[in-house]
This record gives sequence, C-alpha cells and structure tokens, in this order.
Amino acid sequence: MFPVVVENIYLLVIITLISVLQNVFFAQKVERECKGKNGQTSAFERVSCANRNCMDAYPTFLAVMWCAGLCLSQAPAAFAGIIYLMVRQKYFIGYLGQTSQSTPGYLFGKRIISFLFLMCVVGIFNFLLTRYYGSDYKEYVETITSAASALLLLP
Amino acid sequence: MFPVVVENIYLLVIITLISVLQNVFFAQKVERECKGKNGQTSAFERVSCANRNCMDAYPTFLAVMWCAGLCLSQAPAAFAGIIYLMVRQKYFIGYLGQTSQSTPGYLFGKRIISFLFLMCVVGIFNFLLTRYYGSDYKEYVETITSAASALLLLP
Amino acid sequence: MFPVVVENIYLLVIITLISVLQNVFFAQKVERECKGKNGQTSAFERVSCANRNCMDAYPTFLAVMWCAGLCLSQAPAAFAGIIYLMVRQKYFIGYLGQTSQSTPGYLFGKRIISFLFLMCVVGIFNFLLTRYYGSDYKEYVETITSAASALLLLP
Repeated sequence: MFPVVVENIYLLVIITLISVLQNVFFAQKVERECKGKNGQTSAFERVSCANRNCMDAYPTFLAVMWCAGLCLSQAPAAFAGIIYLMVRQKYFIGYLGQTSQSTPGYLFGKRIISFLFLMCVVGIFNFLLTRYYGSDYKEYVETITSAASALLLLP
Repeated sequence: MFPVVVENIYLLVIITLISVLQNVFFAQKVERECKGKNGQTSAFERVSCANRNCMDAYPTFLAVMWCAGLCLSQAPAAFAGIIYLMVRQKYFIGYLGQTSQSTPGYLFGKRIISFLFLMCVVGIFNFLLTRYYGSDYKEYVETITSAASALLLLP
Repeated sequence: MFPVVVENIYLLVIITLISVLQNVFFAQKVERECKGKNGQTSAFERVSCANRNCMDAYPTFLAVMWCAGLCLSQAPAAFAGIIYLMVRQKYFIGYLGQTSQSTPGYLFGKRIISFLFLMCVVGIFNFLLTRYYGSDYKEYVETITSAASALLLLP
C-alpha cells in the first residue's frame, strides 16, 4: 500500500522490532524470577526494578527515535537506536549484578537520547528554514549527522 | 489534509482509541480503589499491580501493532489488536479475583504479540524482496495473513 | 525526504520534543532524590510515585495526540498537548508538596485527553462520511475545533 512510506521507515521498523524482542526478554526474566521466588526476594526486586526503569524510558526512546527518523533521515536514527539497545542491555545485566551496592542510577543512555533529540531539533529547524527562506541544507546536514553518529561509539 | 494516509490507518486509529478507553477504565479502577482504601490494602495492591503490568506492556503493543499495520496491511493488525484488548480485559479482571494464590503471571497476550511481530517481519522481508528482486508477493501474503488472523480465535 | 509529511506533523514533533524534555526533567528529579536519600524515604517515595504516574499516562497521551493530529488537524492537537504538559508539570509539583495528606489522585488531565479523544472520533467520522457520501465537512470541523481548543484554558 505504502511503498514510498515503507521505503523511508523500514530501518526504524527493524529497530522497533529488535527493541520489542528485548522487552519480551526482560519480561520473561521477570516472569521466571517471579515464579521461582522463595525466600530471596532481593533478586526478584532487582529484576523487577531494572525492568521497570527500562520500561519507563521506553516510550520516550521510541518517540524520539521515530521523530528523528522522520524529520531528518533514518539511517543515523536507526544506528543510534541500536547503540541505545546495547546500552540498555548492559544496564539491565549490570542491575542484576550481585553487589547491590553498585546499582547504576535511574537514568541511562542520556547521551544517545540527547543525540536523537538534537537530530529532531536540527530536522525541524531545517524544515522551517526551507519553508520560509527556500534554501535547503538537508543533504548537507544529513552527511554531518551520519558522521556524528559514529562518534557515539566512543565511551 | 491526508486523505490517502487516513485511508490506510483509520482502523488502527480506531483500535488505538478503544485501547485508550480501556486505559482510562483501568486508571479509574485504580483511582477509586485508592480513594476508598481503608484497612484492606491487598485489593488496592492487586488493582495497582494489574494496572502496572498492563501499562508496562502497552507501548510494546502499540509499536508492534502500528508497524504491522503500516508494513503489511491494516485489517489483520486491527483484528489482532481487538483480540489483544479482549485478552487484556480478561487478564485485568482475572487479576482482581479473590483467590490471590492464582494470580496470572506477568506476561499475557504472548501469542498475539508474536503474531503481530511475525506480520512485521513478513512485511519487511516482502519489501526488501520487492526492492531488490522486483517480484511482489504482497497481495498473496496479505491473503494468507487475513486467513491466519482468524486462527487467533482458537484457544 | 518527506517534505509533505513533515509539513503536516512538525507541530506534533515539537510538542513531543518538549514532553521528552519534561520526562528527562522528571527522571533527573528522581535520580537526584535517589542519590541523596538518607533517612527521609518519604520524599523519594513521593517523587518516584509522581514520576511513575506521569509515565503510566505518557503513552496514552502520545497516542491520542498523534491520532488527533493526523486525523483532523495538527494545530488544535498541538495546543491541547501544550496545555496537557502544563497540567502535568503542575501535577508533578503538587505531588511533591510537603502536606502528604493532600496528594492529588492518580488521574490528571482528564479533560484534555477527552478533548483529544473527541477530536479523533470526529476525524474518523468525518473521514468515513467523506468516503461513503462524498461530502466533506472537514474544513468546517477544523474551524470549530480550533475555537473549541481555546475553551480548554478555562479552569
């Protein structure tokens, strides 16, 4: 039905599917821990808390990624999405670690969210410039963004 | 503004509206139980927990349903969405049952999520095939999907 | 890529970005309270609870706002979105107040959600009318909606 539309969003859809798989993986962890809890409630609480923190941030991530992908270009947005999913996986695993003293904080992936946020702002700004002044920097901006998304790999 | 776009998504929008109504219904249950809690905290805890589990799974469901509807076709996706909402209603009611021993697990609607997920994968795969080989199986696939969605009714 | 599409959704994207900023603000409040909790757990619990209630309602709000913006017109939807964000900010601040007796309820922004919901219903209804009868009331309806959205400012 929408060959043109699917053309422009299929990478975003793939990232969304991967994130859904990850959600199901998290939920199954919670399910299994919930079934087998006997005496050691701390493990269940930690899994549940990690899952809740991830789920709290999930709509925000989806909204920013899709906006960035639609407003500017999908390849850098999808790349940042993959990095975010890897960070989330690491966060979840780190949360389950035995040393309960060193649990990571509530927030994670701040840098990636900021990057996607910036992409949205640039995309909107670019659109308004194009509309009112007629000059289109979009391709130029896309090149810069693609290059910048590689910088996310730096720790 | 978008007659063509609305043409292709209106069923999805209707399902989203129904799910929003259901969310509000759940939230009002929590609200009422929260106001009237006096001594019996277990009822409040159960309503709150059921609502939280439903809300945790909600973004995942929305994302998968919209992706499936956009990538393949909207009628089977909307049908699966209705089934999901019915399953969720049953889950919520079941959670409030008096016998707290037999609360259902954390996950629900796994089959429907898997079905929608599969629809997305088929849609993306079909799009890539069309793009690189030029052969379009889309109408064929849509027929199979519509037939398969009827199988979801089986218990 | 999508100049036509971005033309029709850029206000919605801007509202989504503002809501993401607000989410990050809420999350940082939780983070800070979580780090500095020493003895006074009630403040942490209140911030955490306020954040959770806001996050529970967030996907519902996003879904309704985008549907309303796509089905009818984006300007009233974006306006209602701004009002919703202001209500949410007030709710969050009110939740943190010292008098724990007077915490607001679980629900908030019911009027705005209802308004956006009504916009969706009108948009869908209008689309179906246009499709089957060929008469288009859309521009007429849009004018009424823009006027009605100003009524939201009344307390």
